[in-house]
Amino acid sequence: MAGNVRDPGASVASRLLAVLSVFDEHAPALTLTELADGASLPIATAHRLVRELVDWGALVRSDDGRYVVGRRLWKLGLLAPDQSDLREIASPFLHDIYGATLATVHLAIRDGDEVLYLDRLAGHASVPAISRVGARLPLYSTGVGKVLLAYAPREVHDRVLRNLTRITPFTVTRPGQLENELRRVHREGYAQTVEEMTLGACSVAVPIRDGENVVASLGLVVPSIGRDRVRLVAALQVAAQGIGRSLRTG
Amino acid sequence: MAGNVRDPGASVASRLLAVLSVFDEHAPALTLTELADGASLPIATAHRLVRELVDWGALVRSDDGRYVVGRRLWKLGLLAPDQSDLREIASPFLHDIYGATLATVHLAIRDGDEVLYLDRLAGHASVPAISRVGARLPLYSTGVGKVLLAYAPREVHDRVLRNLTRITPFTVTRPGQLENELRRVHREGYAQTVEEMTLGACSVAVPIRDGENVVASLGLVVPSIGRDRVRLVAALQVAAQGIGRSLRTG
Repeated sequence: MAGNVRDPGASVASRLLAVLSVFDEHAPALTLTELADGASLPIATAHRLVRELVDWGALVRSDDGRYVVGRRLWKLGLLAPDQSDLREIASPFLHDIYGATLATVHLAIRDGDEVLYLDRLAGHASVPAISRVGARLPLYSTGVGKVLLAYAPREVHDRVLRNLTRITPFTVTRPGQLENELRRVHREGYAQTVEEMTLGACSVAVPIRDGENVVASLGLVVPSIGRDRVRLVAALQVAAQGIGRSLRTG
Repeated sequence: MAGNVRDPGASVASRLLAVLSVFDEHAPALTLTELADGASLPIATAHRLVRELVDWGALVRSDDGRYVVGRRLWKLGLLAPDQSDLREIASPFLHDIYGATLATVHLAIRDGDEVLYLDRLAGHASVPAISRVGARLPLYSTGVGKVLLAYAPREVHDRVLRNLTRITPFTVTRPGQLENELRRVHREGYAQTVEEMTLGACSVAVPIRDGENVVASLGLVVPSIGRDRVRLVAALQVAAQGIGRSLRTG
Protein backbone atom coordinates (compact mmCIF):
# COMPACT_ATOMS: atom_id res chain seq x y z
CA MET A 1 0.00 0.00 0.00
CA ALA A 2 2.86 2.38 0.67
CA GLY A 3 4.32 1.05 -2.55
CA ASN A 4 7.98 0.22 -2.91
CA VAL A 5 9.51 2.73 -0.53
CA ARG A 6 13.04 1.85 -1.63
CA ASP A 7 11.99 3.90 -4.64
CA PRO A 8 14.13 7.06 -4.26
CA GLY A 9 11.09 9.13 -5.20
CA ALA A 10 9.08 7.87 -2.23
CA SER A 11 8.45 10.73 0.17
CA VAL A 12 9.78 10.83 3.71
CA ALA A 13 6.18 10.93 4.88
CA SER A 14 5.33 7.70 3.09
CA ARG A 15 8.45 6.08 4.57
CA LEU A 16 7.41 7.10 8.06
CA LEU A 17 3.95 5.67 7.50
CA ALA A 18 5.49 2.51 6.01
CA VAL A 19 7.32 1.96 9.31
CA LEU A 20 4.02 2.22 11.21
CA SER A 21 2.40 -0.16 8.70
CA VAL A 22 4.67 -3.00 9.80
CA PHE A 23 2.84 -3.24 13.13
CA ASP A 24 -0.30 -5.35 13.34
CA GLU A 25 -2.03 -7.64 15.80
CA HIS A 26 0.27 -10.51 14.81
CA ALA A 27 3.39 -8.32 15.11
CA PRO A 28 2.89 -5.82 17.94
CA ALA A 29 6.58 -5.74 18.99
CA LEU A 30 9.34 -5.47 16.41
CA THR A 31 13.11 -5.06 16.25
CA LEU A 32 14.72 -2.32 14.20
CA THR A 33 15.74 -4.91 11.60
CA GLU A 34 12.19 -6.23 11.34
CA LEU A 35 10.90 -2.68 10.92
CA ALA A 36 13.46 -1.89 8.22
CA ASP A 37 12.70 -5.13 6.36
CA GLY A 38 8.95 -4.73 6.72
CA ALA A 39 9.06 -1.17 5.39
CA SER A 40 11.65 -2.02 2.68
CA LEU A 41 14.00 0.65 4.03
CA PRO A 42 17.77 0.71 4.56
CA ILE A 43 18.52 0.17 8.23
CA ALA A 44 20.00 3.67 8.65
CA THR A 45 16.86 5.30 7.27
CA ALA A 46 14.63 3.12 9.43
CA HIS A 47 16.75 4.00 12.47
CA ARG A 48 16.36 7.72 11.89
CA LEU A 49 12.58 7.45 11.36
CA VAL A 50 12.11 5.21 14.38
CA ARG A 51 14.00 7.71 16.50
CA GLU A 52 11.63 10.47 15.42
CA LEU A 53 8.64 8.25 16.17
CA VAL A 54 10.03 7.45 19.61
CA ASP A 55 10.76 11.12 20.36
CA TRP A 56 7.16 11.98 19.52
CA GLY A 57 5.70 9.10 21.52
CA ALA A 58 4.26 7.09 18.62
CA LEU A 59 6.60 4.22 19.46
CA VAL A 60 8.27 3.09 22.67
CA ARG A 61 11.40 0.98 22.97
CA SER A 62 10.67 -1.81 25.42
CA ASP A 63 13.13 -3.46 27.77
CA ASP A 64 13.99 -6.25 25.33
CA GLY A 65 14.95 -3.71 22.64
CA ARG A 66 11.83 -4.21 20.52
CA TYR A 67 9.64 -1.30 19.51
CA VAL A 68 5.96 -1.18 20.40
CA VAL A 69 3.15 1.29 19.80
CA GLY A 70 3.13 4.10 22.39
CA ARG A 71 0.46 5.64 24.54
CA ARG A 72 0.31 8.77 22.42
CA LEU A 73 -0.90 6.87 19.35
CA TRP A 74 -3.46 5.06 21.51
CA LYS A 75 -4.87 8.38 22.67
CA LEU A 76 -4.83 9.79 19.14
CA GLY A 77 -6.67 6.71 17.85
CA LEU A 78 -9.41 7.17 20.43
CA LEU A 79 -10.34 10.38 18.58
CA ALA A 80 -11.47 8.45 15.47
CA PRO A 81 -15.11 9.50 15.27
CA ASP A 82 -16.76 6.49 13.64
CA GLN A 83 -15.39 4.48 16.53
CA SER A 84 -15.58 6.91 19.41
CA ASP A 85 -19.01 8.46 18.75
CA LEU A 86 -20.81 5.18 18.19
CA ARG A 87 -18.95 3.41 20.98
CA GLU A 88 -19.59 6.20 23.43
CA ILE A 89 -23.29 6.47 22.61
CA ALA A 90 -23.73 2.70 22.66
CA SER A 91 -21.66 2.06 25.79
CA PRO A 92 -24.32 2.46 28.52
CA PHE A 93 -26.80 0.37 26.50
CA LEU A 94 -24.21 -2.38 26.08
CA HIS A 95 -23.57 -2.35 29.80
CA ASP A 96 -27.27 -2.52 30.57
CA ILE A 97 -27.56 -5.64 28.42
CA TYR A 98 -24.46 -7.15 29.95
CA GLY A 99 -25.75 -6.44 33.45
CA ALA A 100 -29.05 -8.15 32.62
CA THR A 101 -27.62 -11.21 30.86
CA LEU A 102 -23.92 -11.57 31.83
CA ALA A 103 -23.50 -12.83 28.25
CA THR A 104 -20.73 -11.60 25.93
CA VAL A 105 -22.04 -8.43 24.26
CA HIS A 106 -20.69 -7.19 20.92
CA LEU A 107 -20.91 -3.91 19.04
CA ALA A 108 -19.71 -4.27 15.46
CA ILE A 109 -19.62 -2.52 12.12
CA ARG A 110 -18.86 -3.73 8.61
CA ASP A 111 -15.33 -3.02 7.39
CA GLY A 112 -15.16 -4.06 3.75
CA ASP A 113 -16.05 -7.74 3.51
CA GLU A 114 -15.53 -8.41 7.22
CA VAL A 115 -17.07 -7.55 10.56
CA LEU A 116 -15.01 -5.23 12.79
CA TYR A 117 -15.57 -5.43 16.56
CA LEU A 118 -15.79 -1.96 18.08
CA ASP A 119 -16.61 -3.08 21.60
CA ARG A 120 -16.91 -6.28 23.53
CA LEU A 121 -18.12 -6.88 27.06
CA ALA A 122 -17.44 -10.20 28.74
CA GLY A 123 -16.96 -11.47 32.27
CA HIS A 124 -15.79 -14.80 33.57
CA ALA A 125 -19.37 -16.12 33.44
CA SER A 126 -19.61 -15.32 29.72
CA VAL A 127 -19.07 -17.85 26.93
CA PRO A 128 -15.53 -17.66 25.58
CA ALA A 129 -15.65 -15.96 22.17
CA ILE A 130 -12.70 -15.30 19.90
CA SER A 131 -13.71 -11.71 19.20
CA ARG A 132 -11.46 -8.86 20.37
CA VAL A 133 -11.90 -5.12 20.11
CA GLY A 134 -10.32 -4.07 16.81
CA ALA A 135 -10.38 -7.63 15.45
CA ARG A 136 -12.13 -8.71 12.27
CA LEU A 137 -14.09 -11.89 11.60
CA PRO A 138 -16.13 -13.18 8.64
CA LEU A 139 -19.51 -11.64 7.95
CA TYR A 140 -21.20 -15.00 7.20
CA SER A 141 -20.33 -16.95 10.37
CA THR A 142 -21.10 -14.46 13.16
CA GLY A 143 -24.42 -13.07 14.37
CA VAL A 144 -23.41 -9.43 14.05
CA GLY A 145 -21.82 -10.26 10.70
CA LYS A 146 -25.01 -11.79 9.26
CA VAL A 147 -26.96 -8.67 10.21
CA LEU A 148 -24.39 -6.43 8.52
CA LEU A 149 -24.22 -8.73 5.48
CA ALA A 150 -28.01 -8.63 5.14
CA TYR A 151 -27.80 -4.85 4.75
CA ALA A 152 -24.51 -4.68 2.80
CA PRO A 153 -24.26 -3.36 -0.77
CA ARG A 154 -24.90 -5.92 -3.52
CA GLU A 155 -21.23 -6.27 -4.50
CA VAL A 156 -20.17 -7.08 -0.92
CA HIS A 157 -23.00 -9.62 -0.64
CA ASP A 158 -21.97 -11.30 -3.89
CA ARG A 159 -18.26 -11.44 -3.04
CA VAL A 160 -18.91 -12.90 0.40
CA LEU A 161 -21.34 -15.54 -0.90
CA ARG A 162 -18.78 -16.67 -3.47
CA ASN A 163 -16.26 -17.37 -0.70
CA LEU A 164 -17.99 -19.30 2.07
CA THR A 165 -15.38 -21.32 3.96
CA ARG A 166 -16.10 -23.93 6.59
CA ILE A 167 -14.90 -22.77 10.05
CA THR A 168 -16.73 -25.34 12.17
CA PRO A 169 -18.83 -28.32 10.99
CA PHE A 170 -21.86 -26.04 11.44
CA THR A 171 -20.74 -23.06 9.36
CA VAL A 172 -23.29 -22.32 6.65
CA THR A 173 -21.41 -22.76 3.38
CA ARG A 174 -24.28 -23.23 0.91
CA PRO A 175 -25.04 -19.82 -0.62
CA GLY A 176 -28.74 -20.67 -1.01
CA GLN A 177 -29.13 -21.42 2.69
CA LEU A 178 -27.30 -18.23 3.68
CA GLU A 179 -29.50 -16.22 1.26
CA ASN A 180 -32.56 -17.58 3.06
CA GLU A 181 -31.12 -16.57 6.41
CA LEU A 182 -30.32 -13.06 5.19
CA ARG A 183 -33.88 -12.66 3.92
CA ARG A 184 -35.10 -13.77 7.34
CA VAL A 185 -32.96 -11.04 8.96
CA HIS A 186 -34.93 -8.48 6.94
CA ARG A 187 -38.25 -10.16 7.75
CA GLU A 188 -37.79 -10.94 11.44
CA GLY A 189 -35.31 -8.26 12.49
CA TYR A 190 -32.55 -10.45 13.92
CA ALA A 191 -29.84 -12.94 12.92
CA GLN A 192 -28.61 -15.99 14.75
CA THR A 193 -25.72 -18.45 14.55
CA VAL A 194 -25.48 -21.88 16.15
CA GLU A 195 -21.84 -22.92 16.64
CA GLU A 196 -20.98 -21.57 13.19
CA MET A 197 -17.89 -19.62 14.33
CA THR A 198 -16.91 -21.39 17.57
CA LEU A 199 -18.13 -24.73 18.94
CA GLY A 200 -20.17 -24.20 22.08
CA ALA A 201 -21.09 -20.63 21.20
CA CYS A 202 -24.33 -19.37 19.68
CA SER A 203 -25.27 -15.79 18.93
CA VAL A 204 -28.19 -13.52 18.22
CA ALA A 205 -27.82 -10.02 16.79
CA VAL A 206 -29.93 -7.09 15.64
CA PRO A 207 -29.32 -4.05 13.44
CA ILE A 208 -28.64 -0.55 14.82
CA ARG A 209 -30.18 2.09 12.57
CA ASP A 210 -29.32 5.73 12.12
CA GLY A 211 -32.55 6.80 10.44
CA GLU A 212 -33.06 4.38 7.54
CA ASN A 213 -29.48 3.15 7.37
CA VAL A 214 -28.12 0.15 9.23
CA VAL A 215 -24.85 1.50 10.66
CA ALA A 216 -23.88 -1.21 13.13
CA SER A 217 -24.98 -4.39 14.80
CA LEU A 218 -25.49 -5.36 18.41
CA GLY A 219 -25.15 -9.00 19.42
CA LEU A 220 -24.98 -11.47 22.29
CA VAL A 221 -23.02 -14.71 22.53
CA VAL A 222 -24.57 -17.45 24.68
CA PRO A 223 -23.94 -21.16 25.20
CA SER A 224 -27.32 -22.04 23.67
CA ILE A 225 -30.32 -20.11 22.44
CA GLY A 226 -33.44 -22.30 22.72
CA ARG A 227 -36.27 -20.75 24.69
CA ASP A 228 -34.25 -17.64 25.58
CA ARG A 229 -34.35 -16.33 22.03
CA VAL A 230 -37.45 -14.19 22.37
CA ARG A 231 -36.14 -12.59 25.55
CA LEU A 232 -32.62 -12.01 24.19
CA VAL A 233 -33.83 -10.56 20.90
CA ALA A 234 -36.25 -8.27 22.74
CA ALA A 235 -33.46 -6.98 25.03
CA LEU A 236 -31.19 -6.36 22.02
CA GLN A 237 -33.93 -4.58 20.07
CA VAL A 238 -34.79 -2.26 22.94
CA ALA A 239 -31.11 -1.36 23.30
CA ALA A 240 -30.62 -0.97 19.53
CA GLN A 241 -33.58 1.41 19.36
CA GLY A 242 -32.16 3.41 22.25
CA ILE A 243 -28.79 3.65 20.54
CA GLY A 244 -30.42 4.65 17.23
CA ARG A 245 -32.43 7.35 18.96
CA SER A 246 -29.31 8.69 20.69
CA LEU A 247 -27.39 8.71 17.38
CA ARG A 248 -30.04 10.92 15.81
CA THR A 249 -30.47 13.32 18.70
CA GLY A 250 -26.92 13.85 19.62
CA MET B 1 7.21 19.62 21.51
CA ALA B 2 7.78 19.25 17.78
CA GLY B 3 9.61 22.55 18.05
CA ASN B 4 9.20 25.33 15.56
CA VAL B 5 8.52 23.37 12.41
CA ARG B 6 8.74 26.48 10.24
CA ASP B 7 12.43 26.02 10.93
CA PRO B 8 13.77 24.93 7.50
CA GLY B 9 15.90 22.32 9.27
CA ALA B 10 12.85 20.56 10.71
CA SER B 11 12.51 17.13 9.15
CA VAL B 12 9.56 16.07 7.04
CA ALA B 13 8.87 13.39 9.62
CA SER B 14 8.60 15.95 12.40
CA ARG B 15 6.27 18.04 10.24
CA LEU B 16 4.03 15.05 9.63
CA LEU B 17 3.90 14.33 13.36
CA ALA B 18 3.26 18.03 14.05
CA VAL B 19 0.11 17.78 11.92
CA LEU B 20 -1.09 14.81 13.99
CA SER B 21 -0.24 16.73 17.19
CA VAL B 22 -2.90 19.33 16.43
CA PHE B 23 -5.67 16.81 17.14
CA ASP B 24 -6.81 16.35 20.70
CA GLU B 25 -10.02 15.66 22.61
CA HIS B 26 -10.99 19.33 22.41
CA ALA B 27 -10.19 19.52 18.68
CA PRO B 28 -11.09 16.16 17.09
CA ALA B 29 -12.16 17.67 13.71
CA LEU B 30 -10.03 20.31 12.00
CA THR B 31 -9.94 22.25 8.74
CA LEU B 32 -6.81 22.35 6.62
CA THR B 33 -6.18 25.93 7.76
CA GLU B 34 -6.48 24.94 11.41
CA LEU B 35 -4.05 22.06 10.83
CA ALA B 36 -1.55 24.33 9.05
CA ASP B 37 -1.79 26.97 11.79
CA GLY B 38 -1.62 24.40 14.59
CA ALA B 39 1.46 22.78 13.10
CA SER B 40 3.06 26.14 12.12
CA LEU B 41 3.30 25.02 8.50
CA PRO B 42 2.65 26.83 5.21
CA ILE B 43 -0.73 25.79 3.86
CA ALA B 44 0.79 24.09 0.79
CA THR B 45 3.04 21.93 2.96
CA ALA B 46 0.17 21.05 5.29
CA HIS B 47 -1.96 20.15 2.29
CA ARG B 48 0.63 17.76 0.92
CA LEU B 49 1.16 16.07 4.30
CA VAL B 50 -2.57 15.81 4.99
CA ARG B 51 -3.03 14.16 1.60
CA GLU B 52 -0.44 11.54 2.50
CA LEU B 53 -2.09 10.95 5.85
CA VAL B 54 -5.49 10.55 4.16
CA ASP B 55 -4.10 8.15 1.55
CA TRP B 56 -2.67 6.00 4.30
CA GLY B 57 -5.85 6.07 6.39
CA ALA B 58 -4.48 8.04 9.36
CA LEU B 59 -6.95 10.84 8.64
CA VAL B 60 -10.33 10.94 6.94
CA ARG B 61 -11.98 13.95 5.33
CA SER B 62 -15.51 14.17 6.65
CA ASP B 63 -18.56 15.49 4.81
CA ASP B 64 -18.15 19.02 6.15
CA GLY B 65 -14.57 19.22 4.84
CA ARG B 66 -12.91 18.85 8.22
CA TYR B 67 -10.30 16.20 8.85
CA VAL B 68 -10.72 13.59 11.58
CA VAL B 69 -8.65 10.66 12.84
CA GLY B 70 -9.22 7.52 10.76
CA ARG B 71 -9.95 3.93 11.60
CA ARG B 72 -6.43 2.83 10.74
CA LEU B 73 -4.89 4.93 13.52
CA TRP B 74 -7.51 3.62 15.95
CA LYS B 75 -6.52 0.06 15.12
CA LEU B 76 -2.81 0.89 15.38
CA GLY B 77 -3.35 2.55 18.77
CA LEU B 78 -5.04 -0.58 20.09
CA LEU B 79 -1.64 -2.31 19.77
CA ALA B 80 -0.10 -0.12 22.51
CA PRO B 81 0.90 -2.76 25.05
CA ASP B 82 0.67 -0.86 28.32
CA GLN B 83 -2.93 -0.19 27.39
CA SER B 84 -3.92 -3.35 25.58
CA ASP B 85 -2.26 -5.97 27.80
CA LEU B 86 -3.51 -4.54 31.07
CA ARG B 87 -6.95 -3.74 29.65
CA GLU B 88 -7.33 -7.16 28.14
CA ILE B 89 -6.24 -8.99 31.26
CA ALA B 90 -8.39 -6.80 33.49
CA SER B 91 -11.47 -6.78 31.25
CA PRO B 92 -13.31 -9.91 32.48
CA PHE B 93 -12.64 -8.92 36.12
CA LEU B 94 -14.04 -5.44 35.47
CA HIS B 95 -17.13 -6.97 33.91
CA ASP B 96 -17.59 -9.33 36.84
CA ILE B 97 -17.56 -6.36 39.22
CA TYR B 98 -19.89 -4.39 37.01
CA GLY B 99 -22.28 -7.34 36.75
CA ALA B 100 -22.33 -7.67 40.54
CA THR B 101 -22.71 -3.97 41.38
CA LEU B 102 -23.97 -2.13 38.23
CA ALA B 103 -21.77 0.74 39.51
CA THR B 104 -19.37 2.64 37.25
CA VAL B 105 -16.11 0.66 37.20
CA HIS B 106 -12.75 2.28 36.39
CA LEU B 107 -9.35 0.95 35.44
CA ALA B 108 -6.69 3.66 35.60
CA ILE B 109 -2.95 4.24 35.56
CA ARG B 110 -0.81 7.21 36.52
CA ASP B 111 0.34 9.34 33.59
CA GLY B 112 2.73 11.96 34.94
CA ASP B 113 0.90 13.99 37.57
CA GLU B 114 -2.57 12.87 36.48
CA VAL B 115 -4.71 9.76 36.40
CA LEU B 116 -5.38 8.27 32.95
CA TYR B 117 -8.53 6.20 32.48
CA LEU B 118 -7.81 3.02 30.52
CA ASP B 119 -11.27 1.54 30.79
CA ARG B 120 -14.65 2.51 32.11
CA LEU B 121 -17.81 0.46 32.44
CA ALA B 122 -21.11 2.18 33.07
CA GLY B 123 -24.77 1.51 32.37
CA HIS B 124 -27.81 3.72 32.72
CA ALA B 125 -28.20 2.64 36.34
CA SER B 126 -24.66 3.83 37.15
CA VAL B 127 -23.85 7.20 38.74
CA PRO B 128 -22.89 9.74 36.08
CA ALA B 129 -19.11 10.26 36.25
CA ILE B 130 -17.08 12.62 34.11
CA SER B 131 -14.40 10.06 33.35
CA ARG B 132 -13.90 8.84 29.77
CA VAL B 133 -11.52 6.28 28.34
CA GLY B 134 -8.34 8.14 27.41
CA ALA B 135 -9.23 11.13 29.59
CA ARG B 136 -7.12 12.43 32.45
CA LEU B 137 -8.23 13.76 35.83
CA PRO B 138 -6.39 14.95 38.94
CA LEU B 139 -4.71 12.39 41.16
CA TYR B 140 -5.88 14.01 44.40
CA SER B 141 -9.65 14.19 43.79
CA THR B 142 -10.48 10.73 42.43
CA GLY B 143 -10.46 7.34 44.16
CA VAL B 144 -8.19 5.67 41.60
CA GLY B 145 -6.03 8.79 41.62
CA LYS B 146 -5.48 8.72 45.37
CA VAL B 147 -4.35 5.10 45.19
CA LEU B 148 -1.88 5.93 42.42
CA LEU B 149 -0.70 9.05 44.26
CA ALA B 150 -0.09 7.03 47.42
CA TYR B 151 2.34 4.86 45.45
CA ALA B 152 3.81 7.58 43.20
CA PRO B 153 7.48 8.64 43.32
CA ARG B 154 8.31 11.35 45.86
CA GLU B 155 8.66 14.13 43.28
CA VAL B 156 5.20 13.47 41.83
CA HIS B 157 3.73 13.40 45.33
CA ASP B 158 5.36 16.73 46.22
CA ARG B 159 4.34 18.47 43.01
CA VAL B 160 0.72 17.35 43.32
CA LEU B 161 0.46 18.38 46.98
CA ARG B 162 1.77 21.83 46.15
CA ASN B 163 -1.09 22.33 43.66
CA LEU B 164 -4.33 21.23 45.29
CA THR B 165 -7.21 23.08 43.64
CA ARG B 166 -10.80 23.07 44.81
CA ILE B 167 -13.07 21.22 42.31
CA THR B 168 -16.13 20.82 44.52
CA PRO B 169 -16.69 22.20 48.03
CA PHE B 170 -15.57 18.77 49.29
CA THR B 171 -12.26 18.49 47.44
CA VAL B 172 -9.43 17.92 49.92
CA THR B 173 -7.12 20.92 49.46
CA ARG B 174 -5.18 20.85 52.74
CA PRO B 175 -1.91 18.96 52.10
CA GLY B 176 -1.83 17.63 55.67
CA GLN B 177 -5.26 16.04 55.35
CA LEU B 178 -4.39 14.47 52.00
CA GLU B 179 -1.10 13.13 53.47
CA ASN B 180 -3.14 11.41 56.16
CA GLU B 181 -5.42 9.87 53.58
CA LEU B 182 -2.49 8.63 51.50
CA ARG B 183 -0.96 7.01 54.59
CA ARG B 184 -4.31 5.33 55.20
CA VAL B 185 -4.24 3.92 51.65
CA HIS B 186 -1.00 2.14 52.55
CA ARG B 187 -2.37 0.97 55.89
CA GLU B 188 -5.87 -0.11 54.91
CA GLY B 189 -5.40 -0.99 51.25
CA TYR B 190 -8.00 1.29 49.68
CA ALA B 191 -8.79 4.94 48.96
CA GLN B 192 -12.11 6.72 48.95
CA THR B 193 -13.55 10.05 47.84
CA VAL B 194 -16.82 11.64 48.91
CA GLU B 195 -18.07 14.12 46.30
CA GLU B 196 -14.52 15.45 45.87
CA MET B 197 -14.58 15.34 42.05
CA THR B 198 -18.33 15.42 41.24
CA LEU B 199 -21.23 16.24 43.52
CA GLY B 200 -23.38 13.17 44.09
CA ALA B 201 -20.57 10.73 43.31
CA CYS B 202 -18.37 8.85 45.78
CA SER B 203 -15.68 6.35 44.98
CA VAL B 204 -13.59 3.58 46.43
CA ALA B 205 -10.46 2.20 44.77
CA VAL B 206 -7.71 -0.33 45.38
CA PRO B 207 -4.22 -0.88 43.95
CA ILE B 208 -3.42 -3.49 41.29
CA ARG B 209 0.02 -4.96 41.86
CA ASP B 210 2.40 -6.65 39.46
CA GLY B 211 4.60 -8.34 42.04
CA GLU B 212 5.66 -5.57 44.44
CA ASN B 213 4.84 -2.66 42.16
CA VAL B 214 1.52 -0.86 42.03
CA VAL B 215 0.88 -0.63 38.29
CA ALA B 216 -2.75 0.47 38.13
CA SER B 217 -5.84 1.10 40.17
CA LEU B 218 -9.32 -0.36 40.10
CA GLY B 219 -12.24 1.72 41.37
CA LEU B 220 -16.00 1.99 41.67
CA VAL B 221 -18.17 5.10 41.61
CA VAL B 222 -21.37 4.95 43.65
CA PRO B 223 -23.95 7.49 44.85
CA SER B 224 -22.95 6.93 48.48
CA ILE B 225 -20.64 4.58 50.33
CA GLY B 226 -21.90 4.13 53.89
CA ARG B 227 -22.43 0.54 54.91
CA ASP B 228 -21.53 -0.81 51.47
CA ARG B 229 -17.87 0.05 51.86
CA VAL B 230 -16.73 -3.27 53.26
CA ARG B 231 -18.52 -5.19 50.53
CA LEU B 232 -17.32 -2.92 47.71
CA VAL B 233 -13.70 -2.89 48.88
CA ALA B 234 -13.77 -6.68 49.22
CA ALA B 235 -15.11 -7.09 45.67
CA LEU B 236 -12.45 -4.73 44.33
CA GLN B 237 -9.64 -6.45 46.21
CA VAL B 238 -10.62 -9.91 44.98
CA ALA B 239 -10.68 -8.60 41.40
CA ALA B 240 -7.39 -6.69 41.83
CA GLN B 241 -5.71 -9.83 43.13
CA GLY B 242 -7.04 -11.79 40.17
CA ILE B 243 -5.73 -9.19 37.75
CA GLY B 244 -2.34 -9.10 39.50
CA ARG B 245 -2.08 -12.89 39.33
CA SER B 246 -2.97 -12.88 35.63
CA LEU B 247 -0.37 -10.15 34.95
CA ARG B 248 2.36 -12.30 36.49
CA THR B 249 1.39 -15.56 34.81
CA GLY B 250 1.09 -14.02 31.41
